[in-house]
Amino acid sequence: MITVLTGGTGGAKFVDGLRRLVAPEELTIIVNTGDDHDWWGLHISPDIDSILYTLAGMLSPERGWGVRGDTFHCLQAIKALGEPAWFSVGDRDLATHLLRTQLLSQARTLTEATRIIGEKLGVRSRILPMTDQHVETRIHTPAGELSFQEYFVKRHSQDPINSVRFACSMDAKPAPGVIDAITKAAAVLIAPSNPITSIGPILAVPGIRYALRQTEAKVVAVSPIVGNAAISGPAAALMISRDFAPSISGIADCYEDVLDILVVDDSDAESARSLHGRSVQFACTNIFLRTSEDRERVARTTLELAFPEFQGTKLADAS
Amino acid sequence: MITVLTGGTGGAKFVDGLRRLVAPEELTIIVNTGDDHDWWGLHISPDIDSILYTLAGMLSPERGWGVRGDTFHCLQAIKALGEPAWFSVGDRDLATHLLRTQLLSQARTLTEATRIIGEKLGVRSRILPMTDQHVETRIHTPAGELSFQEYFVKRHSQDPINSVRFACSMDAKPAPGVIDAITKAAAVLIAPSNPITSIGPILAVPGIRYALRQTEAKVVAVSPIVGNAAISGPAAALMISRDFAPSISGIADCYEDVLDILVVDDSDAESARSLHGRSVQFACTNIFLRTSEDRERVARTTLELAFPEFQGTKLADAS
Repeated sequence: MITVLTGGTGGAKFVDGLRRLVAPEELTIIVNTGDDHDWWGLHISPDIDSILYTLAGMLSPERGWGVRGDTFHCLQAIKALGEPAWFSVGDRDLATHLLRTQLLSQARTLTEATRIIGEKLGVRSRILPMTDQHVETRIHTPAGELSFQEYFVKRHSQDPINSVRFACSMDAKPAPGVIDAITKAAAVLIAPSNPITSIGPILAVPGIRYALRQTEAKVVAVSPIVGNAAISGPAAALMISRDFAPSISGIADCYEDVLDILVVDDSDAESARSLHGRSVQFACTNIFLRTSEDRERVARTTLELAFPEFQGTKLADAS
Repeated sequence: MITVLTGGTGGAKFVDGLRRLVAPEELTIIVNTGDDHDWWGLHISPDIDSILYTLAGMLSPERGWGVRGDTFHCLQAIKALGEPAWFSVGDRDLATHLLRTQLLSQARTLTEATRIIGEKLGVRSRILPMTDQHVETRIHTPAGELSFQEYFVKRHSQDPINSVRFACSMDAKPAPGVIDAITKAAAVLIAPSNPITSIGPILAVPGIRYALRQTEAKVVAVSPIVGNAAISGPAAALMISRDFAPSISGIADCYEDVLDILVVDDSDAESARSLHGRSVQFACTNIFLRTSEDRERVARTTLELAFPEFQGTKLADAS
């Protein structure tokens, strides 16, 4: 069994590569729910949806979120009613949120709701929320404390960041199956998602970080950082706010206690060599995930690193 | 002030005529909520929506319900998820239901939610639900007891009807403003809606029927029946189930204690003459509401009957 920790769009691209190589039943995806939010009275789980849609083959390739070919007529009507409309929800996408909200109102857990929706979409891999409890990523800025969606979508990641916290994470429990999926995995992969607000909330749920430390499986991450910048999104600024360097060294620091191998871009090969001697090993490849071929190639590289018998990629420290 | 009691599509057509003749501030519409239902976790008020959209000029003229030019992509996605999809909700229409559901979840009453949505849609007439409490029209059939939407939309009014009841009506109170709107009106009009399941639930809310009896305003209804059939919908079968003849005589019986004048179709002139001597007077005109001109003309006739100074239409008993 392959277990993946993932967040939003970068994670979905990586999972899109994995689904081309791994039998769906062999894949478990543990997903960040710190960005979940209430919108128009609906429970929106953006990262779970990105993974659901990716595995169902219905993710919009242009946007990287939401449903392929979706329209936004309800959103336009909400806007015409003078209601907040800064978070885009497509008309077909709405069906998922309506069903999830109904299931949750019927006392189903988020794990159950996710399983039911996945089955209805024909997804055969297991998608697990990191927790069934409410955990909320909060970004403290000079303009006040913002939810992740307010910071990222509404205000376009423009605010300086004072600090980041995961509200209620101390009271959260890993969702059923999460700990086993890590400790019993043949390999644990960390997607190239933002280490602070995508993977960070997962690691903040008590017990998950410990399970990653304890698992006998190799833990392999793909860096979301190339050089001194994130491939996309606000990862660099968020890392700086937590005193991590926005570099592969900083990524290694984020995951130091849990990580075996960090897959970095070829352009970071020299940096990787300079980090030789750390507990984390580095492997280099082209980590940009633009095309299906890119995604499959990076997924294959990562899997080969996780299963030593493959030995398909040279390790940075051996180069 | 003109007060109108109304239900679904027939009522919306009549109100469409009235809005062309009466200043919006002078118009109060009391609307059936016995057809309200929970759908995908949303509070749907079909009759209120038809009136909202009519007065906002956004009702679909082709369908007679929902929003002009709407799409049904969310509905299709819900269907693809294997969820019930027999009740059609358009994508733009969804915005209204989402906002209403949110307002109700924030402890607003249906009256308040309706006022807020009306204001946001630019509606200047007053739309009042018959009650803020839950009242549910239930149709008892050989297949079991059905909600009105199950009977009418899901099962296409095909079931024989044993009986009709308005669940919880005895515990309901008229919504704020309803009684005053009737007792202080210059005229009270009853739209050509189904007398059993559209106007019936309104009259079943304790106090409303009494107010109609007491008001000094003329009460004028437009018949939804021509000959022995409803102009549209299942009114005839529903009337028979309640031992009313499906005819203008039966309509007069339904409203006998509250009605001054019943406007019937020219083709029913002879029947109307034969009913001379009843407490209800009859007026004849072409009551089909196909075009805007039809609607305006019937609305004008009804208003003239309600305000004797107009004297625009000869009464059947004088013909």
